[in-house]
Amino acid sequence: MLIHRKEIQIEWGDCDPFGIVFFPRYFEYFNACTNALFQRALGMTKAEMLRHYQIAGIPLVHASCNFLVPSSFGDIVQVDSCVTEWGTSSFTVEHKLYRAETLAVEGLEKRVWTARLPDEKGTPKGQPIPREVMESFR
Amino acid sequence: MLIHRKEIQIEWGDCDPFGIVFFPRYFEYFNACTNALFQRALGMTKAEMLRHYQIAGIPLVHASCNFLVPSSFGDIVQVDSCVTEWGTSSFTVEHKLYRAETLAVEGLEKRVWTARLPDEKGTPKGQPIPREVMESFR
Amino acid sequence: MLIHRKEIQIEWGDCDPFGIVFFPRYFEYFNACTNALFQRALGMTKAEMLRHYQIAGIPLVHASCNFLVPSSFGDIVQVDSCVTEWGTSSFTVEHKLYRAETLAVEGLEKRVWTARLPDEKGTPKGQPIPREVMESFR
Amino acid sequence: MLIHRKEIQIEWGDCDPFGIVFFPRYFEYFNACTNALFQRALGMTKAEMLRHYQIAGIPLVHASCNFLVPSSFGDIVQVDSCVTEWGTSSFTVEHKLYRAETLAVEGLEKRVWTARLPDEKGTPKGQPIPREVMESFR
Repeated sequence: MLIHRKEIQIEWGDCDPFGIVFFPRYFEYFNACTNALFQRALGMTKAEMLRHYQIAGIPLVHASCNFLVPSSFGDIVQVDSCVTEWGTSSFTVEHKLYRAETLAVEGLEKRVWTARLPDEKGTPKGQPIPREVMESFR
Repeated sequence: MLIHRKEIQIEWGDCDPFGIVFFPRYFEYFNACTNALFQRALGMTKAEMLRHYQIAGIPLVHASCNFLVPSSFGDIVQVDSCVTEWGTSSFTVEHKLYRAETLAVEGLEKRVWTARLPDEKGTPKGQPIPREVMESFR
Repeated sequence: MLIHRKEIQIEWGDCDPFGIVFFPRYFEYFNACTNALFQRALGMTKAEMLRHYQIAGIPLVHASCNFLVPSSFGDIVQVDSCVTEWGTSSFTVEHKLYRAETLAVEGLEKRVWTARLPDEKGTPKGQPIPREVMESFR
Repeated sequence: MLIHRKEIQIEWGDCDPFGIVFFPRYFEYFNACTNALFQRALGMTKAEMLRHYQIAGIPLVHASCNFLVPSSFGDIVQVDSCVTEWGTSSFTVEHKLYRAETLAVEGLEKRVWTARLPDEKGTPKGQPIPREVMESFR
């Protein structure tokens, strides 16, 4: 299973008055990690991926995080990201953020391989994930 | 049970290249909603709350969202927030974001009533939530 | 000259480890103020404005701020915004952010009334601002 | 004169509904570049710098940007940063952001070497910049 590691430097502007990372920033980090994971697996940029597979994107239907240990300005952290589950048109990405050797934040994203045209309510509508996409994450 | 409603205008800078809210922004909105809920329940600002109860804050140990319907720049949405569960030193806040009459995003935060001094790893350490605090949310 | 006042509550996530507003947030505030100013002057939302005048938007070519007095979490500030200069296809928006009665931040934006098609380098290309637009700011 | 080059990958969440970088993000990038420049010049992290020189920080009194060419999600840009002017207690940092070989954004920050105690209005108060600090940027 493909695991992509991304290094992130905690910036001053990501930290709150406690001096620790403001928690929504972790979701931003993990979103960037998912993009990097797909770029590595498919060997193309996100823009190329959208064109090549004729999809609108891979928007989220669910996101969650467990915050175990805080990080601060200047810390350099590592995030290991992988797809842990493939459904027909949805999939789950797991992120583990380490500070030094310690697991500091766990994140989970459930995303949908999304057709270009939304349904009538404007809600993202899934379409089947191509087999070659899944296989590129082995 | 106290439910606080907050109106939020979706700003241009909160939206991504799809033209819809970039999902980490919902966690920012909900964080602001929790602060507004506590201010209403306790009748004091967060700064006053920290001083009065001699706590470091109410940081999160878990956050999650279900994204049901996207919102776009210019939308005005309503968020209903309430505390759904009180533990000894932790509690759960639930947020329901409505666009027009439609439930668009559900959020959940698990937070800790946190002592001023962290433990030796720098992890937030809970202390018992005063009874009067819980009662102010009735 | 039309001056639009917008009230902004400083959120926890807008503040840095010093406990004061992280300065790029002021540019976000002022961007929202410009949108609110145009909505008030023209009596239509930004989406309607783009359609009605067949423009791509009003992107910036220059932005600047003078930071005089810091603001902190929980502060409620007022921003007075107005267009101080109209060129053929560009214009200048001035913002004054007050904390209590004190001028705390001054902002300036130079923006371009932008055609739907960029030039060959992808740079925003201006087109003449309609007279009725300018007149709605009197 | 020390020029520090930092590479930045434009993330999805930094881009607006036009698909280009939302302009306040440039100020965030440049803030991170200034921190990286100081870390390189002084050979210590910002936290160490604050302790070593017994200052509160280097907050801004002025920031400005000229936006020449837009950048989009997936672009990798380079920022060259240097201190162009030293006053007694204030200094100017210049940033040049290049996309491919093209100068895309110019930024300017005026910052103050700030004493730990603000004046009575809470305004940052400068103190003389040590000669060794200036010399480390040669």
